[in-house]
Amino acid sequence: MANAMLLPVLISFLVLPFSAMALTQDFCVADLSCSDTPAGYPCKTGVGAGDFYYHGLAAAGNTSNLIKAAVTPAFVGQFPGVNGLGISAARLDIAVGGVVPMHTHPAASELLFVTEGTILAGFISSSSNTVYTKTLYKGDIMVFPQGLLHYQYNGGSSAAVALVAFSGPNPGLQITDYALFANNLPSAVVEKVTFLDDAQVKKLKSVLGGSG
Amino acid sequence: MANAMLLPVLISFLVLPFSAMALTQDFCVADLSCSDTPAGYPCKTGVGAGDFYYHGLAAAGNTSNLIKAAVTPAFVGQFPGVNGLGISAARLDIAVGGVVPMHTHPAASELLFVTEGTILAGFISSSSNTVYTKTLYKGDIMVFPQGLLHYQYNGGSSAAVALVAFSGPNPGLQITDYALFANNLPSAVVEKVTFLDDAQVKKLKSVLGGSG
Amino acid sequence: MANAMLLPVLISFLVLPFSAMALTQDFCVADLSCSDTPAGYPCKTGVGAGDFYYHGLAAAGNTSNLIKAAVTPAFVGQFPGVNGLGISAARLDIAVGGVVPMHTHPAASELLFVTEGTILAGFISSSSNTVYTKTLYKGDIMVFPQGLLHYQYNGGSSAAVALVAFSGPNPGLQITDYALFANNLPSAVVEKVTFLDDAQVKKLKSVLGGSG
Amino acid sequence: MANAMLLPVLISFLVLPFSAMALTQDFCVADLSCSDTPAGYPCKTGVGAGDFYYHGLAAAGNTSNLIKAAVTPAFVGQFPGVNGLGISAARLDIAVGGVVPMHTHPAASELLFVTEGTILAGFISSSSNTVYTKTLYKGDIMVFPQGLLHYQYNGGSSAAVALVAFSGPNPGLQITDYALFANNLPSAVVEKVTFLDDAQVKKLKSVLGGSG
Amino acid sequence: MANAMLLPVLISFLVLPFSAMALTQDFCVADLSCSDTPAGYPCKTGVGAGDFYYHGLAAAGNTSNLIKAAVTPAFVGQFPGVNGLGISAARLDIAVGGVVPMHTHPAASELLFVTEGTILAGFISSSSNTVYTKTLYKGDIMVFPQGLLHYQYNGGSSAAVALVAFSGPNPGLQITDYALFANNLPSAVVEKVTFLDDAQVKKLKSVLGGSG
Amino acid sequence: MANAMLLPVLISFLVLPFSAMALTQDFCVADLSCSDTPAGYPCKTGVGAGDFYYHGLAAAGNTSNLIKAAVTPAFVGQFPGVNGLGISAARLDIAVGGVVPMHTHPAASELLFVTEGTILAGFISSSSNTVYTKTLYKGDIMVFPQGLLHYQYNGGSSAAVALVAFSGPNPGLQITDYALFANNLPSAVVEKVTFLDDAQVKKLKSVLGGSG
Repeated sequence: MANAMLLPVLISFLVLPFSAMALTQDFCVADLSCSDTPAGYPCKTGVGAGDFYYHGLAAAGNTSNLIKAAVTPAFVGQFPGVNGLGISAARLDIAVGGVVPMHTHPAASELLFVTEGTILAGFISSSSNTVYTKTLYKGDIMVFPQGLLHYQYNGGSSAAVALVAFSGPNPGLQITDYALFANNLPSAVVEKVTFLDDAQVKKLKSVLGGSG
Repeated sequence: MANAMLLPVLISFLVLPFSAMALTQDFCVADLSCSDTPAGYPCKTGVGAGDFYYHGLAAAGNTSNLIKAAVTPAFVGQFPGVNGLGISAARLDIAVGGVVPMHTHPAASELLFVTEGTILAGFISSSSNTVYTKTLYKGDIMVFPQGLLHYQYNGGSSAAVALVAFSGPNPGLQITDYALFANNLPSAVVEKVTFLDDAQVKKLKSVLGGSG
Repeated sequence: MANAMLLPVLISFLVLPFSAMALTQDFCVADLSCSDTPAGYPCKTGVGAGDFYYHGLAAAGNTSNLIKAAVTPAFVGQFPGVNGLGISAARLDIAVGGVVPMHTHPAASELLFVTEGTILAGFISSSSNTVYTKTLYKGDIMVFPQGLLHYQYNGGSSAAVALVAFSGPNPGLQITDYALFANNLPSAVVEKVTFLDDAQVKKLKSVLGGSG
Repeated sequence: MANAMLLPVLISFLVLPFSAMALTQDFCVADLSCSDTPAGYPCKTGVGAGDFYYHGLAAAGNTSNLIKAAVTPAFVGQFPGVNGLGISAARLDIAVGGVVPMHTHPAASELLFVTEGTILAGFISSSSNTVYTKTLYKGDIMVFPQGLLHYQYNGGSSAAVALVAFSGPNPGLQITDYALFANNLPSAVVEKVTFLDDAQVKKLKSVLGGSG
Repeated sequence: MANAMLLPVLISFLVLPFSAMALTQDFCVADLSCSDTPAGYPCKTGVGAGDFYYHGLAAAGNTSNLIKAAVTPAFVGQFPGVNGLGISAARLDIAVGGVVPMHTHPAASELLFVTEGTILAGFISSSSNTVYTKTLYKGDIMVFPQGLLHYQYNGGSSAAVALVAFSGPNPGLQITDYALFANNLPSAVVEKVTFLDDAQVKKLKSVLGGSG
Repeated sequence: MANAMLLPVLISFLVLPFSAMALTQDFCVADLSCSDTPAGYPCKTGVGAGDFYYHGLAAAGNTSNLIKAAVTPAFVGQFPGVNGLGISAARLDIAVGGVVPMHTHPAASELLFVTEGTILAGFISSSSNTVYTKTLYKGDIMVFPQGLLHYQYNGGSSAAVALVAFSGPNPGLQITDYALFANNLPSAVVEKVTFLDDAQVKKLKSVLGGSG
């Protein structure tokens, strides 16, 4: 078969359907300047390789704080390329003694992969309040089902780092303490719906900047 | 642990990730001024508690009509807070002798909860045309699978009221009589595709305001 | 057109495709004796009208306890007819002074409809920890987005009753207090991941039957 | 690069991950001997090319009946290979004067492709009861949104044939007439919920084999 | 029951809820002038019957090229009415000796229905690289699971035509040869990731218009 | 409030609904001894913390082969805890000069996180065959949309390691070379549908163990 003959006809065959299919949706990089929708952001135009790449997890988060931990997200807001793809990521840095406090992700399951150090992690089922807990070393993975309370803390003697992947581009993060104490929900209401003592509620409201 | 020390560092830890996550989608209250999408309306900005609240089902619908019934919807069009949340509601008021005529919801299953009176309800399966029917009293619930023909009527001697929940924010409502007789579908076509007699079709077209 | 002629041919036309379509899935009532799957329970055979009906929400729950509240579920476990239909329900009874403590539903959004009394309800967003709260009277509805912390309490001077609908057949219910204090999660871990004081944790562990 | 060297190492590389991935789910041919689930049938073992092939639409359906039409389904019940794949098919044969009566598919949208003859088709929206109708010739396609009432009839002077594709493996088929008149739903109830006259209901019940 | 009495009251009953429900989403015809979203295009306004109809598959594609085949798509880009409905179509024309080269649809399963001639078709599983192949005659259907490599070619002595339906409105089409050779992916990279010889890669790059 | 009083009543309140809700589905660890379903495996009973943990990615895969690379999966088949959770993982080890050949995942998008070394990665869109390629260093992430051809190779002077997360528990892996050459698809068919030369096809069939 002569290339010279094959060339024009094959191209004409292939070019035609592809121009006709120019609207095919292989991906939908978020246009964050538009309003979100229940299925994610509208797609931006003018996509390049950089849209599918994110450098923001390469550097360690700053753990020079009292909880000695940092969460660095690569959700759709930071990494628009994951829009519509059902996945996102984050980096966890936990110094010795550090902790990622009890929290949930309302909109995704989480898969944690330890890249450095030792992490103690656990989640609590809703059906029976059973605690599922593991000590994780470098290379271990653990999965936390969507919406369930879970936590991680450094269980070793050196800094711990983990990559976290989520089953959605916008998993959300609700830290229980922050939800209870870092806003203007009146102390009396917090106490009523948590059975915590007034002094405890007011102490944590003070610490976390809440009012009421 | 001294509060004075905990305060600034913990806040800085928590505030940083949250400002970075400001685009997290906990909900997506419909901006009804935008075009709908297959997954629902784009999200409005400036959301408040009132967006998640609806008062429109509190008052009884007007049943002073011949069918002695009223359907009051709280779909996404009336209650934008349900956008993207997979749920919506309606109120049914059925006076003595009243009826909600045979209909389907193309886009949701329905769960009916009787709050007052007695309702006779039924649905028809497509696989075998089996009729599933129940007499429902106050506090009873019944579920109607998506897309199947069903009906409700007051089976008692006092007014009946029900709350209806749907498995989607925009369930749709196709009343068979209205679809067949309340538009310009020609009588000859209606007769051809329903086997109804010409006189019957023309009578109901006249009653329901159809033409042709 | 003579009925006598129409009868045999039309039936033969219609019966044939329907026998061929006998496996059509209009619904899938749960066979709770089988293992669950990620999409719900396998379908039971021999379905009747009773499978789509549930009486268990008709009676008030027993609120003669300290929290003066009761939740009566009509999830797939109690009401197998909702399996696969994307909806379920529950009844809330809250006596004067009663409370449904802070909790989440990991697998569904919730729509609350007040049928008696006055309910104060609120939920907390994850993106900014904003509190959305409303006083709800008879006939009012409020929607709580999936996975977010929320609570309800009786805000009036008489018993309150609500019907709650969920956007899934198996919404789950994770009461924060119960998750933190009613199991064997060691107090030291609870304190580490919640910043609660040791005395507070031990007090609530004692109250809620937890150990460790 | 020498083939002799490449052969063993490359195979060992590729064989190892694939044996480890032997459970990968490329498809899930229905095992119709098992109970269905909300997401479809469990997967059969021992799959061959024949499982993805169906011959049953090759022959014309028998239109020697009064409605002069036949529907030949290739749903999951007839063609187990479509299980879990979100698609199925059917063949429509409509003789001159024949009709596929007004019906819905509760669980799928439909795409009709005319392969012979002329078909008049229409569907009715639920929002405004608008009729959308078209005369379709060979090669034309029309789409009918999920759950909406629609019909097809032969609008020409020769036999019409169409291939119909559905957006799900088990679309269901609810023929309005059959649902109303071909079962034991009492005539009084049918009349109450459809506003049809008693004589009309009883006539069609008689024709379609209904009782009550 | 007197028609004269029924007319005004019934209409008022029915008109009221329907005006209130004017936002019900029976369908969502694509507004291709808007940005796409992960769930499809925003809905256009001013919909008519023509939006649900497409004539573009009626004419044979031009197979007067070397591969003697043509694919004519009716995806959302050509047929906006399928937006959000989970289905689309295409027409295959394959002259004697023609071939639709090895390809995948990243976003849909495919159902092929032969309307003329003989087509040899096959797909390859990922779990075990098993080839599933069939010779298809007029009226036969075959299903190709989402994302798997497959091909079709004319296996007979006359032109072949097929209607192809997809389980999504925007299935995509990735022809392996075109992906490997018809762009600027450097030959050295192609060779590295495919094990093809340099001469082979450069020959096909030349034929298909690739560079590098 | 006296603990002694609070204890029995609160427990009785909380224990009762939870025993009633014992079927709540927080997770669904795969019972691999059962048949798969389109939504995943049936749930096993007797779940423990070990079911949500996987150690198999901790050790480097063996790259002592010609392609100098290894893929170690943690899909549902290896890590049953991810069943139904929409996520899974794998580990990539690529020695200097190693390559993960051109491939697709039919059932998931992929997110790659480099933990050691330098990886050159790229994917090809279907709409325009555009190549999106990036050089990734330690800590960089890249996302590959579902179903699109992509590849990775070591672009540095030391071993490269990456963690890969997928947007589904069973993503599949179709290596183009293996699909084309490592089975019994006849060479003549391969050549017809790929335009590869006979010698090239036979050479790779020989290398990869294919026949025909």
